[in-house]
Amino acid sequence: MSFPYTQDLRHSFEPSLRAADLARTAPTLARLKAAVGTGRYAFLDQPDRRDDLAAIREAAARFANFDTILLLGTGGSSLGARTLAALVDGGLGLWPRGGRRLVVAENVDPFGFEKLLATLDLGATGILAISKSGGTAETLAQLHGLLPHLAARVGTAEIAKHVAVVTEPADNALRRLAGRFALPTLPHPPTLGGRYSVLSAVGLLPACLLGLDIEALRDGARQARDAALGAPETSLPAQGAALAVALAAQGHTQSVLCAYADALGPFGQWYSQLWAESLGKDGKGTTPLRAVGTVDQHSQLQLWLDGPADKLFTIVSQASRDKGPRYSEAALGDPALAYLAGRTMGDILDVAARATAETLARRGRPVRLMHVETLDETSLGALLMHFMLETAIAADLFGIEPYEQPAVEEGKILARRYLQGMA
Amino acid sequence: MSFPYTQDLRHSFEPSLRAADLARTAPTLARLKAAVGTGRYAFLDQPDRRDDLAAIREAAARFANFDTILLLGTGGSSLGARTLAALVDGGLGLWPRGGRRLVVAENVDPFGFEKLLATLDLGATGILAISKSGGTAETLAQLHGLLPHLAARVGTAEIAKHVAVVTEPADNALRRLAGRFALPTLPHPPTLGGRYSVLSAVGLLPACLLGLDIEALRDGARQARDAALGAPETSLPAQGAALAVALAAQGHTQSVLCAYADALGPFGQWYSQLWAESLGKDGKGTTPLRAVGTVDQHSQLQLWLDGPADKLFTIVSQASRDKGPRYSEAALGDPALAYLAGRTMGDILDVAARATAETLARRGRPVRLMHVETLDETSLGALLMHFMLETAIAADLFGIEPYEQPAVEEGKILARRYLQGMA
Repeated sequence: MSFPYTQDLRHSFEPSLRAADLARTAPTLARLKAAVGTGRYAFLDQPDRRDDLAAIREAAARFANFDTILLLGTGGSSLGARTLAALVDGGLGLWPRGGRRLVVAENVDPFGFEKLLATLDLGATGILAISKSGGTAETLAQLHGLLPHLAARVGTAEIAKHVAVVTEPADNALRRLAGRFALPTLPHPPTLGGRYSVLSAVGLLPACLLGLDIEALRDGARQARDAALGAPETSLPAQGAALAVALAAQGHTQSVLCAYADALGPFGQWYSQLWAESLGKDGKGTTPLRAVGTVDQHSQLQLWLDGPADKLFTIVSQASRDKGPRYSEAALGDPALAYLAGRTMGDILDVAARATAETLARRGRPVRLMHVETLDETSLGALLMHFMLETAIAADLFGIEPYEQPAVEEGKILARRYLQGMA
Repeated sequence: MSFPYTQDLRHSFEPSLRAADLARTAPTLARLKAAVGTGRYAFLDQPDRRDDLAAIREAAARFANFDTILLLGTGGSSLGARTLAALVDGGLGLWPRGGRRLVVAENVDPFGFEKLLATLDLGATGILAISKSGGTAETLAQLHGLLPHLAARVGTAEIAKHVAVVTEPADNALRRLAGRFALPTLPHPPTLGGRYSVLSAVGLLPACLLGLDIEALRDGARQARDAALGAPETSLPAQGAALAVALAAQGHTQSVLCAYADALGPFGQWYSQLWAESLGKDGKGTTPLRAVGTVDQHSQLQLWLDGPADKLFTIVSQASRDKGPRYSEAALGDPALAYLAGRTMGDILDVAARATAETLARRGRPVRLMHVETLDETSLGALLMHFMLETAIAADLFGIEPYEQPAVEEGKILARRYLQGMA
């Protein structure tokens, strides 16, 4: 079986720029490799886990009769699930007719909450509340907001059949609430940060509920990890990290992940949290932007080509040639559309990705190309691991600790003070 | 009736920085004011139009029996409709049970197209194809991809009952296709650029199909326009433009629009196109980023607070205090959640917006606050006009022509050449 993805730096400019940075990744790679299996960096060990699969499948089986899964969670507790769910809904909210759908509620917007109640039949909904700390205000507020409606719909005695929880083993507010209602509870690995948790129960329970092959997700991640932790020259994440850090020093302060695949739209959101929250410290880091091609060609491309030269582009594509409807000259019936004759929808996407990369490169914009033959559990698992590793390696190059997010605490404390001060 | 929105620059730092730029907006404001009603800048005139309402309502009535509206369009042909539709689905894809939903197809991803076919019942779907030029490859490829499926489902003779078109009056491929199938066709105002078209049939036909008050949208826009085109000191868009341009010169190369309202999520996408495509020229412009609070507090806030100081923040909020479920101490049942006792979900959102603004300001990050009491057609119309004006005024300050997007042509030409070269 071939490797799940490729990386092509031919348009990324001046390898000399990043050679020094690439060499500097060697100790990081050695340290990460030595850590595999030790628990020191929990995200490295998720691909090898088999111990938690039975519990994940058992929890999923409890919701077998529900046509909607409502995930309550935010940040690291929601973006991984959104990313994996896109393999089912195409990243577009297009759930197959008669199939199961995932609805994700991340906010404490009372108007959005009202829409949720107007949309869902709670009697046919399984609710999954996910919070690592068990103290996330949004998730607790959502769950406490829903419980009265759920009790009214199905009866208090049935609540435990409709709600499941993922949280740390340690005592916390969400775990106590789970205890009060006897809700099934899966452990959030305590040393695994939210934005690195997609390959734990946090991402895999929702994925399992949607019928995805969760072992293939881990297998793809394992392949990416094992191939990455060798020499810098052959490590795709090390090359990506060295490129991003070298270009950041040259004023490329933004990193655009542009996926020519609808189903990778949510992946861009997941990447944006991973990169921003891990590296945005001490005045360092670069700003992630997510985009989808060809859609954002009609929104952002003008700026990318002719605005400030401050962005690194990563174009991720899926093999699409010969895929989708094929246009015949007769059906098109218009000489102006002759350029489409004999081509498929996928051909249009394929050439758009190539033409955009080429056009950006001609304007002197650095572009990295990443490609998967088939976007599935294996290749998506590999991409997830690639970017977790790339982020961890870039953090070392920047001299930043990637697993904390200290700055956000100040706002949380202030918000609670405001809340308590409300008359 | 009070003005539909407020703007507060108290956290935006150093008014002196922008005073010179603000003064420079006076001729722009005078020129825009003199242009109202002349057709010189078509976006200024949309709020006063009544001539097109009957045709919009008539076109909408043809789709009265459909439970799904499928919009085929991209960029300026889709983002306005998405923005308006969020008043119905909360920006979350949460369509009321039994109500009508809007599905937007913007891409030529064959896998996304497959999801579309697996999801929609074309017999119960009205299709709206929108392209100003009538030559947008994506939109024509989508429509030509769908027509055989639609014909198979409802019969060729019924196609005209299921499809409507919005395009320029001039002859073009989409208009010829409409002629071939006798599809009802509304005119895209020819001098109105796509990203400025939300208050024309481009946005208002989808809005009308979703039951929104399209005259209130225009009325809100008219209020915002009329209040803005006076002295710079009292013009909210001129103040915003001067702030953005002054800060850009100080290294604030990114403009974050963070909405503390789920229903303004798509508005952020619309703004991102407007700002990027209008201003990203000649190496100038700043990069727009869209965010939703509190969601992106759990994704981007760490970077915003502690990463590079290169962003201007616009926090848009909707009055949410006392809204949504209220938490009682008894129901919470946990001393650790005492801070929520007596508060509502909307209170949490309200304090989060204030705490985030305050925390950003304490770290020296410039913040502009915008606020609406009620997010509805009137206030959304006003916000749309505000940002179109702010963009046009900023363009003058940057010395940029805001109504073209010349750089994207190169990629389009290259893509067609690749397509023709495929064996």
